[in-house]
Amino acid sequence: MLKAGILGGGQLGRMLLQAAANYPVETFVLENDPDCPAAHLCHHFVKGDIRNFDDVYNFGRGLDALTIEIESVNEDALEKLEQEGVKVYPRPATLRIIKNKIRQKEFYTSHSIRTAPFVITQTKDELLAQEQFLPAVHKLATGGYDGRGVQVINTKDDLDKGFSEPGVLEKKISLNKEIAMIVAVNDAGQTALYPPVDMVFDPLLNLLDYQISPADLTETILWKVEAIALKVVKELQSPGIFAVELFIDKEGEVYVNETAPRVHNSGHHTIEANYSSQFDMLWRIILRYPLGNTDAILPGAIVNLLGEDKHSGDAVYEGLDEVLRLDNVFVHIYGKRQTKPGRKMGHVTIINKDKQDLIYKKNRIKSLLKVVSDKV
Amino acid sequence: MLKAGILGGGQLGRMLLQAAANYPVETFVLENDPDCPAAHLCHHFVKGDIRNFDDVYNFGRGLDALTIEIESVNEDALEKLEQEGVKVYPRPATLRIIKNKIRQKEFYTSHSIRTAPFVITQTKDELLAQEQFLPAVHKLATGGYDGRGVQVINTKDDLDKGFSEPGVLEKKISLNKEIAMIVAVNDAGQTALYPPVDMVFDPLLNLLDYQISPADLTETILWKVEAIALKVVKELQSPGIFAVELFIDKEGEVYVNETAPRVHNSGHHTIEANYSSQFDMLWRIILRYPLGNTDAILPGAIVNLLGEDKHSGDAVYEGLDEVLRLDNVFVHIYGKRQTKPGRKMGHVTIINKDKQDLIYKKNRIKSLLKVVSDKV
Repeated sequence: MLKAGILGGGQLGRMLLQAAANYPVETFVLENDPDCPAAHLCHHFVKGDIRNFDDVYNFGRGLDALTIEIESVNEDALEKLEQEGVKVYPRPATLRIIKNKIRQKEFYTSHSIRTAPFVITQTKDELLAQEQFLPAVHKLATGGYDGRGVQVINTKDDLDKGFSEPGVLEKKISLNKEIAMIVAVNDAGQTALYPPVDMVFDPLLNLLDYQISPADLTETILWKVEAIALKVVKELQSPGIFAVELFIDKEGEVYVNETAPRVHNSGHHTIEANYSSQFDMLWRIILRYPLGNTDAILPGAIVNLLGEDKHSGDAVYEGLDEVLRLDNVFVHIYGKRQTKPGRKMGHVTIINKDKQDLIYKKNRIKSLLKVVSDKV
Repeated sequence: MLKAGILGGGQLGRMLLQAAANYPVETFVLENDPDCPAAHLCHHFVKGDIRNFDDVYNFGRGLDALTIEIESVNEDALEKLEQEGVKVYPRPATLRIIKNKIRQKEFYTSHSIRTAPFVITQTKDELLAQEQFLPAVHKLATGGYDGRGVQVINTKDDLDKGFSEPGVLEKKISLNKEIAMIVAVNDAGQTALYPPVDMVFDPLLNLLDYQISPADLTETILWKVEAIALKVVKELQSPGIFAVELFIDKEGEVYVNETAPRVHNSGHHTIEANYSSQFDMLWRIILRYPLGNTDAILPGAIVNLLGEDKHSGDAVYEGLDEVLRLDNVFVHIYGKRQTKPGRKMGHVTIINKDKQDLIYKKNRIKSLLKVVSDKV
């Protein structure tokens, strides 16, 4: 059996390992926390730091293939392992481009891929000089994750909230919508596109409200989105799964927001809603099987389950019974013992040919299901 | 988190654990073979003999719930654990009825559940005296599994092939078809029925060819099947998942063939073809969640993947690439390193609203996919 390792043991690793059990593959996980969501679902759990050269290198030696479930891994070790013959998904050179937001933005412009206008800021002083560029978003070059490392700068009064470390100041686009597209690339360079997903934000809270697939796009925009997503993965020159997030402005122009070189939250509905899920697809790539069928079985929506504000401690899932009673709903709890505000604790997928039902159910689920703790 | 143990670590345990990872539950597996298909997918693997009282009792102490993936477990230990407060799915008293084929047949007749006429034979001499009862099938009371412990006795010349140990000689029914129905029962006695499955046998080889769901039944027969399946699980007085296998004769009469008190091969298509799979459903029962939706998303068929004749040794999956290229097909390889003739090595599920496509694809899969070994 092929030996495949995953750097990181969170929910993405967990779902990867659920899918791995359909195939003959020996699985390994590297992660500091032996109670992490993926630890018990692999053949071999190795405790170690995915950001540490020696830990990653020692973990990867002797494996046939490696993948990641988070970008913040030691890419020097991955590069050395790649030179020694371990297949790495994505390739370390690609990961290096993506995990630094300055390099990622420069990659788009140097390959004529439309992205929001930006300036690079190395220091706070450089940022403070960019008053004429507002409204904008300041993003740390490295270390940002899940909303951390991102700061909205609407007016010059906000400039002080920006970062002192190197970052990208990105002009705000007159946004119509945000979408995401999962793309699979195998070692032979063959690609498979999943139907794009509408990422719908709550206009009041400015937080992701839910995701729905397939996205509601005109044929022209869909064509642009597919062409751009394919161009991104082609230029990244790496096999693997990629989540390309895009902005569509009010004139119908398409901009790449950012790309994740791994399975992604915006593709979780593919577990139930598509023939080959993003997790299944990554194993097909790693195991050198043919790419899977990305077609939807039914339209799907995802509601993310985040830890409630002010709740930290042992997780309790309020309203779970009511949600489990809904006919066409699939609950995924990630098995994290502790909740904290905003922590990703699970997701719920809804499938139905009727998109109105998806909207109705996501509202029901959002009002019913809360991750709380007895210790407030 | 609730602590739940599984007795046995084969493919049923493997698929149960894939489903468990959607819920907050701490999983345990008891099994002799640390390389078994389920060993690496639980939180805690315990090496031990599921037929041994001490092994089962020590495994179960301290757990909240136990289930089985095979009948040949030590039910005395389960009974003691149940008395001490561990929830057991199915209840040990029910398991005791089912795992002895004599008791199981007597259970049907004592509850007026139609089953094929039978005589009980304690010795070979008693069997030899049953010439007037032929054609029939002789089944060992205990220890039979997967075709072992069953002998077809068509004429008096075959009588010598029967067993010397206690068994059931069951009259052959003038069969129209065999079907199976998965039924879920929770602790409150609520039930949920899955659509029945046609079990289609190869008329030449007399082996299960494939399974297709929903079964093609008249409304009257479907009504009888549902009523009988419900009667069986009601009289068995146990929560859990039950697979009721039934015969339908040429006159449309319905007979219970046998019942398995656990997740079952005839329900594997429910992973992709139904909203709540049989594995998901068992966790809902164990975790005291509401029962799931048994409706089909699409019709489904299953092809079992058995080790080829004459092949024993490291498993190789010939034709896997071609099968993985089929659009609406889901491959489940159980990860057993060694194949041997007739060993269950995996299954393939096909889903489509068009039943003709299911038949076409199952033929393609059967001709393409072979589990062989380099050592013949």
